[in-house]
Amino acid sequence: MKLQVALDTLTLEDCLTLLEETKGSVDIAEVGTPFIIEEGMRPVREFKKHFPDIEVLADAKIMDAGELEAETAFKAGADIVTVLGASNDETILGAVKAAKKYHGKIMIDMIAVKNLEERTKEIDAMGVDYICVHTAFDVQSSGKDPLDELKIVNRVIQHAQSAVAGGVKLSTIDAIVEEGAGIIVVGGAICNAQARAEAAKEMKRHLR
Amino acid sequence: MKLQVALDTLTLEDCLTLLEETKGSVDIAEVGTPFIIEEGMRPVREFKKHFPDIEVLADAKIMDAGELEAETAFKAGADIVTVLGASNDETILGAVKAAKKYHGKIMIDMIAVKNLEERTKEIDAMGVDYICVHTAFDVQSSGKDPLDELKIVNRVIQHAQSAVAGGVKLSTIDAIVEEGAGIIVVGGAICNAQARAEAAKEMKRHLR
Repeated sequence: MKLQVALDTLTLEDCLTLLEETKGSVDIAEVGTPFIIEEGMRPVREFKKHFPDIEVLADAKIMDAGELEAETAFKAGADIVTVLGASNDETILGAVKAAKKYHGKIMIDMIAVKNLEERTKEIDAMGVDYICVHTAFDVQSSGKDPLDELKIVNRVIQHAQSAVAGGVKLSTIDAIVEEGAGIIVVGGAICNAQARAEAAKEMKRHLR
Repeated sequence: MKLQVALDTLTLEDCLTLLEETKGSVDIAEVGTPFIIEEGMRPVREFKKHFPDIEVLADAKIMDAGELEAETAFKAGADIVTVLGASNDETILGAVKAAKKYHGKIMIDMIAVKNLEERTKEIDAMGVDYICVHTAFDVQSSGKDPLDELKIVNRVIQHAQSAVAGGVKLSTIDAIVEEGAGIIVVGGAICNAQARAEAAKEMKRHLR
């Protein structure tokens, strides 16, 4: 199990500080979508330069031009790039093609996918590396939780590994670990913690 | 009817040259998604600085964190920001809230939306400015055409204006103009033309 920290709202400088503080606990540093919209691929390049041993995920949430957009992220140094499960099959397949070329990985973000079980089966057959259930930030306040969706994906996948994102915190991580996932994504519970290094270490301790 | 040129794959320098060449023909300059993934909001700022009279659309294809991400684009100077029709309602409503705050506009990109008629009705009631039918770049080679989808949207909308994107060219523009749309988006047919200024002028001449 890998711990991914989602870096969304901090400055680049503060992200680098956080990655230094949490060294040894964080396996994957996520350049979040809001960060990409503001800065493009610069944070990907900076993370890779300063922390060559940490995997970098570019949360580009690709919806079209899969090959071209994934290639842009891999060229910048991303190890993993996200594509939306809601996109056309051709877009996912294009991104997988780019991943093969650059020896990178594709994570499919299942955010807002309605027919989760059916779509997971389809996508699992396309050669992607991770299928990530994701409770949208915009609906987290409704109390929605990604655990039930994780169970569906785990039951269905035969090739890809599962991943889980969206409001994961210390009080919910054990149930997720019990259910099983290749990657657990944590955002606010680390980034907004009083003691970020301790929070990350504690999270990592709960993983298997 | 407004003519929007989608700037996706050119360098920033070349985009500025194109906007200079096509002055008077282009109403809206689109900073395309691949461009945002590479450069973030820099092209939005540059377009606005050099061409204050041309509207700038940031094709962020927002899927989550609607208010935050739309705000980022409006702050950078975007006049219009795109949000995916496949996103959760909360995301669209968050982006509309940001648009009101910054006196900007929201365009919903209906790319890969399966239940187009039903979803258009729902989104039309949310206070968005444009609902854009969009044949994905990744499926254009299959011969798919956005005209049929435009007819569905035009039949259903009561508040928003329609827009159309995806492989629009001189041979297909008249049927689209006949059907009617608030914005017609053209990419390759202008950007990859031998004579870009002429191509844009010719396109504009076909609009009403």
